Amino acid sequence: MNKIEHIGIAVKDITSSNELFSKLFGKASYKTETVESEGVKTSFFKVGVNKIELLEATKADSPIAKFIEKKGEGIHHIAFDVDDIEAEIKRLKEEGFKVLNETPKRGADNKLVAFLHPKSTNGVLIELCQEIKQ
Amino acid sequence: MNKIEHIGIAVKDITSSNELFSKLFGKASYKTETVESEGVKTSFFKVGVNKIELLEATKADSPIAKFIEKKGEGIHHIAFDVDDIEAEIKRLKEEGFKVLNETPKRGADNKLVAFLHPKSTNGVLIELCQEIKQ
Repeated sequence: MNKIEHIGIAVKDITSSNELFSKLFGKASYKTETVESEGVKTSFFKVGVNKIELLEATKADSPIAKFIEKKGEGIHHIAFDVDDIEAEIKRLKEEGFKVLNETPKRGADNKLVAFLHPKSTNGVLIELCQEIKQ
Repeated sequence: MNKIEHIGIAVKDITSSNELFSKLFGKASYKTETVESEGVKTSFFKVGVNKIELLEATKADSPIAKFIEKKGEGIHHIAFDVDDIEAEIKRLKEEGFKVLNETPKRGADNKLVAFLHPKSTNGVLIELCQEIKQ
């Protein structure tokens, strides 16, 4: 794992949260993107080599809507940048982690992603992500 | 803000969590440190330029013990590296954020730290930290 690629934060209203995080970081979001398959609208901020991803649900039964219903707004996941997501999935399975996506799926921000079940990682939802080469 | 300095994760048993995160990152924790004033035992892992800090409570009334009691194990805070913590505290107060430590205090890992109240930041506990020059 190379670095923290981003931290995902579940928010109720991405417009007001964009304003809030713009004040926090002293600069605007550099990208917004909707991932229909995940029922989520995203907005990205750069903080040095790392990113913050705000996540708003676009439908009532999306994972982010359920998360907010259960836990309220707040940190949803940590994503680590990896060079070879398939090799990492294999390695982590062998180490006993529960991988939620045995085959990586396409996520926001031009990435292949896979999640680890928080039950196997001290309650932390972990995403592995690998940049898709153009 | 220069980068994510670290992510703090509240755990019940730092010995078993050290083992778990060693498997996750494929390397051991590089430092453990107890901060008596905060009632916390910490353990650090490097992931590129970023760090993961595991936090175990050393007493029943410490903030980490209360956090786990209320929310269970999981992500506790995000820390951002800053060059001038006093200037950042001033800027963020002017932007309307609720700063919990108007005067920075000494934290783990040779840092001056200050926290922002999660009520002013979408439920995210944010730490500012500045390396103490030797």
